[in-house]
Amino acid sequence: MTNKMWGGRFSKATNELLEDLNASIKYDYRLAKYDIEVSIAHVMMLAKSGVISKEECQLIVNGLKKVQKEISDGKFEFKKKLEDIHMNIESRLTEIIGPIAGKLHTARSRNDQVATDIRLFLIDKINGLVELIEENQKTLSQQALDNFDAIMPGYTHLQIAQPITLGHHLLSYVELFNRDKLRLTDSLKRLDESPLGAAAMAGTSYPVDREYSAKLLGFNKPMSNSIDAVSSRDMLLETLSNIAILSVNLSRLAEEIILWVSTEFNFISLPDSLTTGSSIMPQKKNPDPLEFLRGKTGSIFGNLFSMLTILKGLPLSYFKDLQDDKEIVFRSYDTLYSCISILDEILNNFKPNKNKMLSLANKGFVTATDLADYLVKNNNKTFREAYQITAQIVNYAERRKLKLDELKLNDLKKVEPKLKSNVLNIFNLKNSIKSKKSFGGTSFNNVKKMITKYKKIYK
Amino acid sequence: MTNKMWGGRFSKATNELLEDLNASIKYDYRLAKYDIEVSIAHVMMLAKSGVISKEECQLIVNGLKKVQKEISDGKFEFKKKLEDIHMNIESRLTEIIGPIAGKLHTARSRNDQVATDIRLFLIDKINGLVELIEENQKTLSQQALDNFDAIMPGYTHLQIAQPITLGHHLLSYVELFNRDKLRLTDSLKRLDESPLGAAAMAGTSYPVDREYSAKLLGFNKPMSNSIDAVSSRDMLLETLSNIAILSVNLSRLAEEIILWVSTEFNFISLPDSLTTGSSIMPQKKNPDPLEFLRGKTGSIFGNLFSMLTILKGLPLSYFKDLQDDKEIVFRSYDTLYSCISILDEILNNFKPNKNKMLSLANKGFVTATDLADYLVKNNNKTFREAYQITAQIVNYAERRKLKLDELKLNDLKKVEPKLKSNVLNIFNLKNSIKSKKSFGGTSFNNVKKMITKYKKIYK
Amino acid sequence: MTNKMWGGRFSKATNELLEDLNASIKYDYRLAKYDIEVSIAHVMMLAKSGVISKEECQLIVNGLKKVQKEISDGKFEFKKKLEDIHMNIESRLTEIIGPIAGKLHTARSRNDQVATDIRLFLIDKINGLVELIEENQKTLSQQALDNFDAIMPGYTHLQIAQPITLGHHLLSYVELFNRDKLRLTDSLKRLDESPLGAAAMAGTSYPVDREYSAKLLGFNKPMSNSIDAVSSRDMLLETLSNIAILSVNLSRLAEEIILWVSTEFNFISLPDSLTTGSSIMPQKKNPDPLEFLRGKTGSIFGNLFSMLTILKGLPLSYFKDLQDDKEIVFRSYDTLYSCISILDEILNNFKPNKNKMLSLANKGFVTATDLADYLVKNNNKTFREAYQITAQIVNYAERRKLKLDELKLNDLKKVEPKLKSNVLNIFNLKNSIKSKKSFGGTSFNNVKKMITKYKKIYK
Amino acid sequence: MTNKMWGGRFSKATNELLEDLNASIKYDYRLAKYDIEVSIAHVMMLAKSGVISKEECQLIVNGLKKVQKEISDGKFEFKKKLEDIHMNIESRLTEIIGPIAGKLHTARSRNDQVATDIRLFLIDKINGLVELIEENQKTLSQQALDNFDAIMPGYTHLQIAQPITLGHHLLSYVELFNRDKLRLTDSLKRLDESPLGAAAMAGTSYPVDREYSAKLLGFNKPMSNSIDAVSSRDMLLETLSNIAILSVNLSRLAEEIILWVSTEFNFISLPDSLTTGSSIMPQKKNPDPLEFLRGKTGSIFGNLFSMLTILKGLPLSYFKDLQDDKEIVFRSYDTLYSCISILDEILNNFKPNKNKMLSLANKGFVTATDLADYLVKNNNKTFREAYQITAQIVNYAERRKLKLDELKLNDLKKVEPKLKSNVLNIFNLKNSIKSKKSFGGTSFNNVKKMITKYKKIYK
Repeated sequence: MTNKMWGGRFSKATNELLEDLNASIKYDYRLAKYDIEVSIAHVMMLAKSGVISKEECQLIVNGLKKVQKEISDGKFEFKKKLEDIHMNIESRLTEIIGPIAGKLHTARSRNDQVATDIRLFLIDKINGLVELIEENQKTLSQQALDNFDAIMPGYTHLQIAQPITLGHHLLSYVELFNRDKLRLTDSLKRLDESPLGAAAMAGTSYPVDREYSAKLLGFNKPMSNSIDAVSSRDMLLETLSNIAILSVNLSRLAEEIILWVSTEFNFISLPDSLTTGSSIMPQKKNPDPLEFLRGKTGSIFGNLFSMLTILKGLPLSYFKDLQDDKEIVFRSYDTLYSCISILDEILNNFKPNKNKMLSLANKGFVTATDLADYLVKNNNKTFREAYQITAQIVNYAERRKLKLDELKLNDLKKVEPKLKSNVLNIFNLKNSIKSKKSFGGTSFNNVKKMITKYKKIYK
Repeated sequence: MTNKMWGGRFSKATNELLEDLNASIKYDYRLAKYDIEVSIAHVMMLAKSGVISKEECQLIVNGLKKVQKEISDGKFEFKKKLEDIHMNIESRLTEIIGPIAGKLHTARSRNDQVATDIRLFLIDKINGLVELIEENQKTLSQQALDNFDAIMPGYTHLQIAQPITLGHHLLSYVELFNRDKLRLTDSLKRLDESPLGAAAMAGTSYPVDREYSAKLLGFNKPMSNSIDAVSSRDMLLETLSNIAILSVNLSRLAEEIILWVSTEFNFISLPDSLTTGSSIMPQKKNPDPLEFLRGKTGSIFGNLFSMLTILKGLPLSYFKDLQDDKEIVFRSYDTLYSCISILDEILNNFKPNKNKMLSLANKGFVTATDLADYLVKNNNKTFREAYQITAQIVNYAERRKLKLDELKLNDLKKVEPKLKSNVLNIFNLKNSIKSKKSFGGTSFNNVKKMITKYKKIYK
Repeated sequence: MTNKMWGGRFSKATNELLEDLNASIKYDYRLAKYDIEVSIAHVMMLAKSGVISKEECQLIVNGLKKVQKEISDGKFEFKKKLEDIHMNIESRLTEIIGPIAGKLHTARSRNDQVATDIRLFLIDKINGLVELIEENQKTLSQQALDNFDAIMPGYTHLQIAQPITLGHHLLSYVELFNRDKLRLTDSLKRLDESPLGAAAMAGTSYPVDREYSAKLLGFNKPMSNSIDAVSSRDMLLETLSNIAILSVNLSRLAEEIILWVSTEFNFISLPDSLTTGSSIMPQKKNPDPLEFLRGKTGSIFGNLFSMLTILKGLPLSYFKDLQDDKEIVFRSYDTLYSCISILDEILNNFKPNKNKMLSLANKGFVTATDLADYLVKNNNKTFREAYQITAQIVNYAERRKLKLDELKLNDLKKVEPKLKSNVLNIFNLKNSIKSKKSFGGTSFNNVKKMITKYKKIYK
Repeated sequence: MTNKMWGGRFSKATNELLEDLNASIKYDYRLAKYDIEVSIAHVMMLAKSGVISKEECQLIVNGLKKVQKEISDGKFEFKKKLEDIHMNIESRLTEIIGPIAGKLHTARSRNDQVATDIRLFLIDKINGLVELIEENQKTLSQQALDNFDAIMPGYTHLQIAQPITLGHHLLSYVELFNRDKLRLTDSLKRLDESPLGAAAMAGTSYPVDREYSAKLLGFNKPMSNSIDAVSSRDMLLETLSNIAILSVNLSRLAEEIILWVSTEFNFISLPDSLTTGSSIMPQKKNPDPLEFLRGKTGSIFGNLFSMLTILKGLPLSYFKDLQDDKEIVFRSYDTLYSCISILDEILNNFKPNKNKMLSLANKGFVTATDLADYLVKNNNKTFREAYQITAQIVNYAERRKLKLDELKLNDLKKVEPKLKSNVLNIFNLKNSIKSKKSFGGTSFNNVKKMITKYKKIYK
């Protein structure tokens, strides 16, 4: 009777739904390469420990390598009814080498196997991300070099505050991305232990040499507790967090460039290949790729929270709740990979509109703080006095609708009679920038020195 | 006219709301200690660089120390109208030492100041958390030692799978917490650079020595880009993530203990001080503190997501959106601090109910896999054959409603005639546990060895 | 030079990535049915308004119906290079009916078109979910009827508190799901307005009749503001929230059943088709489908937060950031659909273990509060006095290791001499349950009455 | 020994932490008013049902009213050691009226009591939010009226697309907020059932009249299942979601205004009271309140996620995990209340810079689509042909650096000889806007009509 009900209402039979939920092969096929590496290390260890013979080992290893080749040649057929990548490979191995394939699964379980696979996947992909980030840092450094003297407004509150250079601004992202990179690198340490040999959860009575299989796979050592080895997913949370933090920084840069390519800012232009336009409104250069990568922050945050939710309050050790872990981390990795790749293309190809940047940098009274500092340094004023005098001068200029660099010495003397003519240099944007010589400041020299340093690192 | 409307509808005047939003003193008062340290380092640097005189420096430093003392003595009055901690301190300093206090703010801005304060806060608190975690690891190790031979069921899917020991189970959390600790320790590296001297965003024209003030504050070096120094909050995201990941692990342990103190499991009991009961239902020992810390995962996840949301798509450099950063990180830190403290108290004081654990560990056919392994090792079976034979034996026992350790040799021989009497040892739970000698496995010796190792580390 | 760099590092060319990001066809193909409905309504409106002729209209409508048939017959080839579902359909339409197909896009844009498609999708799917939920309510009611007198422990804090019936417990989910259903139904009101005719964002100069096309598509009326029509995605957020809230309730029920099928609780058993086992450990019935649906809460929460993040701080009107909206809502809908279907199967097929439930319900002193109430009602005590006497009696029983229903009248009289023999009825679990006659209470009659009511509603 | 350890490490004693976690009075004092209403309704019901006498009822009600007055007069002392608002009130009641106060707690528990309190709180506050939103809609309508003819650029992708009016743009938010309001109103239906009388979880054996107490409190009816009544918190999730969705819309408007007050856009200006400036840089008007409310989206999202996390996988019925529910919902409500209030002040007080908006609206070729539509309507072209001709004309203009409204008829005829002089009207922005007469379009008349309609609704 239940079935009857289902028939009418549910477009997909429940059986099929249950089958679907057991089948992880639709995404864990991506672990194939790592799964085979793990199996090879495992049988080599079994042979070394005397659990299987050298000959059996050789047979299995050769079989696994054939499977590997079939997969990389695109000739392997992944079967949903075999549920997951482990069974798909073992089943094919049995077809190739016969029942001896059954020895492969001695002294291990799918629990420690998948935990090892996923660690190898993460190590591989994190290393790849680190390279990508360095590519971006290199691109940013090159653009910073090309624009080390391109004056632009520096903002706080999206209000023009002080003159800076585009070079200096771009270098701030080199620094941001550097910490993102270091976080990823540090996370590798937590991945550098092998779960293999933890078996289902309690360890095994076979005389396994976990140290040996760990070394074969490039791990520093085996994990120290078998329950932890199969239950913990904190290394996924760490990766998903690191990806999320990096995506925050990407979204900030994307937002800035979206502003910069608007008609109102018009600081830079993007090549046609990186915008979508309308042949009927040729002025329209929609920065789709940047919007794409800003929006992807959403997916990436979502993935982190998915995994946090899954693990919240979950007892040890393995539960089916964990099955989603792979899809989630694949999605975040893929998304980030696309985002950084696209960003690099954008950073490589934008063209600054230096005149527009310069003209905006001189809006308002951006050198007012320079004047206050001048007064402190040259006229023996306390900062408070200097601040008051500056405010009066700015006020004077504003009433006359003049910029600070349009004031004459006489104008200034009306407020502070002791001023000397060299004060006029203060209002020059270039001088303002040059003066910011403090370490990390926006002076042209600072920026060039920093780029030289980066160039050595990200070559 | 606008005001009239407000009058009727809004219970709080808008002016007051605006004042509220500008006033961060209600939470950033907690930065007082760090803010004063920063100011002291800053004026010492100004003196060294010749921007102010030695005497001025001494005067300001003494004044700041007086303010510090007033605060630690609880005599300082934090004023909302002075908005934030920086102005509260500077204003009091002016009262104490007069207008010379105005020199304190030379060559810096609130932007770099608060960024430095918050880094010092984080470094301090992270170090404290690391100590707390070690305390927990020590407590766990001690309980593991006291229960290294307390046999309990090992679970997968909350279904009894294999016998383990409580000691082994507790040690898995020592490992989990260890990675949580390492993440926190690694994050200190990203905090080890001083923003001080970045000024508003562009750097400063004063001859500041950022290296020197960084060293005075215990930082490794000054941050390399002034815009990055005042804009970036990734170090907060990293801390909030690390706290969230740790809270996941706390919630898993809390969930387990909540199960263990239920009548159904009844594995352990908690002292009255750690439960709330009802004098009318004396059996009821509500594990409120554990529920509290499981629920707090919610707040901690929420804080992480709050900060991610705030930063998403935010251009550089400073925005008022960032004002919430302090409250968010304070809340996550306070919550985690309470949670770990409470957990330590619980771990120190629970009493295992060894009989109940043991009796449940022998439910079902938990040694079936041991039998299969025995057949592989002793009867020259492949794992597949061994698996079939075991299934038949289990089947045989189930039909007779016998546990495996209630079977006689003759029963077993009906299925596999070649079995010898030593096979019966296999069904003993202790033997099963002893046999899991693989590194990280649940054998008594393994657990003891691991505890000895921990004892040396967390002394 | 850029290209060279890419060559080595990136496994996927950037061009391909950019193409990928523009192509939404890989998921928006699911909007095909709705997109064609929208197009048909649009051309019928254009004909009615005289923008195109009756004949042109007929030609286009016939063409669209052919496309529709090709799609439902699985003969339509979706092409990535045509980017989205709209262009795929229009391109095929042009092949079928020639250049006249170009008239279809008069007085509309992709912005209002996709906004209309997605509303139709949501209306359709929400109605389907409502049906599914009612199916579950029906199943719950039937199981409640079958178990209206199955006594089980009622819990607070996972500690046994008062006796209830399984029927009563199951009905609480009927109520929870009812509110979930009402939320979905209410959300349809916000979807009941047609964006069609808003064009790109400003409206159109063609004499369109938006009222008419809205009616043709089953909408109540056209949306009142063209910018709102193309920019807003709050209806997605509402749907994603409603799905998330429902999934919370699913996760709570899943958690309960996972506990109930553990050896320790052993309240119910699931058929083999709904567990995965191990032929070697026959007692192991892993409730994978329930773990699956508990874990899926993670994905569903993640999707909500993805969409919230995407929309945070996004100016009006259309941005590429929004492209992800479809994939996100499809994923949440699909996941929830699977979860409810699986839950219904589980609820239809579990078997209660009434003896185990009953025996646990009598653990502790679950009728202590009944005794206190008895003293208030029969012995003229204030609640405070009654509470004190009850505590003493419970204490007495505990010291003697007796349950309350094992006490004799003489035992009770030692504490309260005025007690009469009918007090002993109080300790009977059935009597306790019967007495909870307050509306919504657990009494057998209440539960039966409620089921009768539900049976009429969910027939 | 444990204590010793604590001594050194933990600055707060564990006992104090445990006390803290039990004490909810620090935030649930805000429920006082509702808690007393609930108690009054409860005792009146007890009297009507004959459980207590009329006189007892009168005594208790009078006592409760005295407590209420003490609280509203600010004379009540909330005590942490009495843990929560319920015990604080009951304890004070006992001081005032003596032991008879003990009868108040007959036939109820804190579980149903707090569930009722929180529903009353939500109903009250949601109604208040609805009023606030209407205030905003009124303000938006008034500003839209004042600016119904203020031409500004309409954007897609933050690229100028078509001319619209500021009035039209503001009205889109009236529509967005309208749905936000309806969601809140609809949620009241789920709150309109009283949990009171569900007691601890199973109902009660007293002859309570839940219908009566529900009516006294203004609820439509009592909740139908006692377990649901004390366990469910979906109404909180719904409120938190509705607040989050509304905050998304606030953040979008805040972002737009932040852009509009930048020097680059310069569309509007804000009064000094709504910006923070620098007397030294008078041009700087930091829109702090808008940044504040954009950033607050973070807290509001976080709160939703906190509550979702808490409830995920939580069995029925009451758990301490739920204690956080109140603080979370208070925080979201308070934050939203501040945000809307501030927004209303901003919307009431900004001044549009009509010239700047107009001049930007004419950048690019914003009337190109109008030309294509003209060709379809007047020159018998299909849309495809019209599109091609338009593209050529735009191209021609671009090469000569002319705007479309600077072209002469002769210029146009070079591309399409059949064009007549009235085509030139097409390029006038006002005409473009006037032509968008479709329902909901940007035409001046449409906007005025819509405002007239709103004025009637939001008076």
